[in-house]
Amino acid sequence: MAVKRLGTQTVKFGNPPSIKGFYTIVGPKEGDGPLSKYFDLILADDLWGQESWEKAEIKMQEECIKAAINNGGLTVNDINYLIAGDLLNQIIATGYSARQISIPFFGLYGACSTMTESLSLGAMIVDGGFADNVICSASSHFSTAERQFRFPLEYGNQRKFSSQWTVTGSGATLLASGGNGPYIKYVTTGKIIDAGIKDVNNMGAAMAPAAVDTLLYHFRDIGCKPSDYDLIISGDLGHIGKEIVIDMMKREGYDLRSMYTDAGVEIFDKDTQDTHAGGSGCACSAAVFNGYVLKEIKKGKFNRVLIMSTGALHSTTSVQQGESIPCIAHAVTIDKKRE
Amino acid sequence: MAVKRLGTQTVKFGNPPSIKGFYTIVGPKEGDGPLSKYFDLILADDLWGQESWEKAEIKMQEECIKAAINNGGLTVNDINYLIAGDLLNQIIATGYSARQISIPFFGLYGACSTMTESLSLGAMIVDGGFADNVICSASSHFSTAERQFRFPLEYGNQRKFSSQWTVTGSGATLLASGGNGPYIKYVTTGKIIDAGIKDVNNMGAAMAPAAVDTLLYHFRDIGCKPSDYDLIISGDLGHIGKEIVIDMMKREGYDLRSMYTDAGVEIFDKDTQDTHAGGSGCACSAAVFNGYVLKEIKKGKFNRVLIMSTGALHSTTSVQQGESIPCIAHAVTIDKKRE
Repeated sequence: MAVKRLGTQTVKFGNPPSIKGFYTIVGPKEGDGPLSKYFDLILADDLWGQESWEKAEIKMQEECIKAAINNGGLTVNDINYLIAGDLLNQIIATGYSARQISIPFFGLYGACSTMTESLSLGAMIVDGGFADNVICSASSHFSTAERQFRFPLEYGNQRKFSSQWTVTGSGATLLASGGNGPYIKYVTTGKIIDAGIKDVNNMGAAMAPAAVDTLLYHFRDIGCKPSDYDLIISGDLGHIGKEIVIDMMKREGYDLRSMYTDAGVEIFDKDTQDTHAGGSGCACSAAVFNGYVLKEIKKGKFNRVLIMSTGALHSTTSVQQGESIPCIAHAVTIDKKRE
Repeated sequence: MAVKRLGTQTVKFGNPPSIKGFYTIVGPKEGDGPLSKYFDLILADDLWGQESWEKAEIKMQEECIKAAINNGGLTVNDINYLIAGDLLNQIIATGYSARQISIPFFGLYGACSTMTESLSLGAMIVDGGFADNVICSASSHFSTAERQFRFPLEYGNQRKFSSQWTVTGSGATLLASGGNGPYIKYVTTGKIIDAGIKDVNNMGAAMAPAAVDTLLYHFRDIGCKPSDYDLIISGDLGHIGKEIVIDMMKREGYDLRSMYTDAGVEIFDKDTQDTHAGGSGCACSAAVFNGYVLKEIKKGKFNRVLIMSTGALHSTTSVQQGESIPCIAHAVTIDKKRE
């Protein structure tokens, strides 16, 4: 049965699952950014008519999931599994949206790595023959994350220049056993990498070594090289983490300059949007992947993309207890062609 | 590819994954309970030499995973994936134990349903041909859960009679593509069921309808009946939830009286251990499954068992915002024989 395994961390799909539908919802700040035209729905305000930001995030994820299923020409009843997560304690944004979408549900916690964690498991479930259709999803919300992980917004606290800005948004991807692509061909699953960094205001630096570890295993396991991809895009390393990845990979003999970027670098304008080190959050890679990346693959700009969401698995409690930040990155190869 | 699917929520494994190793660690109170002899390691105190209860829970899960792998005659390097979760915010008990066990990692949040969520995904990954060996794990700790979800222990607050007692412990199961069983034959994945209950001191009542929904789909999807099992055991419904399940199932035409119990009912002595409505927590089903159930299957008391962990996916924030409790239950069929 082990024929689908490559090296130590990668699997190759025998019948690559097809991406049949996808959708993105983002907040107003993301809608003002450089990728504006790629998002399907841009909210006018980040409460979206709800009583709390948490309820707005729940609504975002629910509507995004439904729209992605609809975009794929299916209905909720056609879907075998929902695989999703978010940043909130007990993943309430996901649990409560799953309540509205009454199908078998696997809840994930992978912090900002959730989008590719869900795509990885979803692709295995489809290729393994356990499902015809799986919906994968992730969300985050600046205002829910900020008050949970940092300070009440009303404090108006100053942010460090190494801080990133949690993306308000949701992205959902419909995977199917049949379809015309693009296809998920490989998945490289990350290990926890902890470089000993304790500064929660510099998550890009904390997560970069995990991204590098996953990239190295991806290239070694498959026997491929960066230039085999038209685009390699990490989840939310931001400006600082992106440069660390480029430097560390160069030392390992890989030149990423021409095809690599980070979703947190692309989603906000560095000069005008005052997000300091760039975007972060589960929705950073979820929205950039389901917006920019998939739409440009469909249009023909990219044929082969490596998307790698990156996550920091600390909590406020672990940080208060003096622990460093354990990080992870999961990489997924998207190819326009099946073979 | 859909031949492995039965009905709407169940899959049948073509090559049932074998349970190759398992291990349990519990705290002193659990060690004083009726299932004492089934646990592999009973801690003398719930700090286990650590500086905080959170670090003790991390150590429990880490040691439990390593011991289950060792029990299966393998080493960490033989394991393709770790699939695990816990109750803490951002699943830090799992994230930090995964840091010590450097293998590809999928983090889950399924609240107290985590053990069977991890077994479900693990079994799909093994049967799907993506792994030879997968380790599945869950943990909880009375003292970390109590101060996160309810009150600081120092308050000495009174507990309602409908309250349950979070089990301190961890259980880990090693699944393998080859082996002599017992085997995972079926998996029925739950939907979110929310009966509108808002009382977080009565989780058994909140979770019971989710357990009933999963049981009904399990029997219908497979075309089997309760008496096909020697034991049907839910995760942590406790005394109140167990009775509700029996009543609700009776109304649906199923008599569970002779083979059904709940892990939260079994793990503590009702008369002497003062846990009110029984045990709860991810470790409740994880410890009872990897202790009592698997050891009695090996000894020949049970040939066919349905284990169904149950989870409540609320948070303190969602409860404070007036939300009811969304619940879920995942069922897994364990059979001594392969065919």
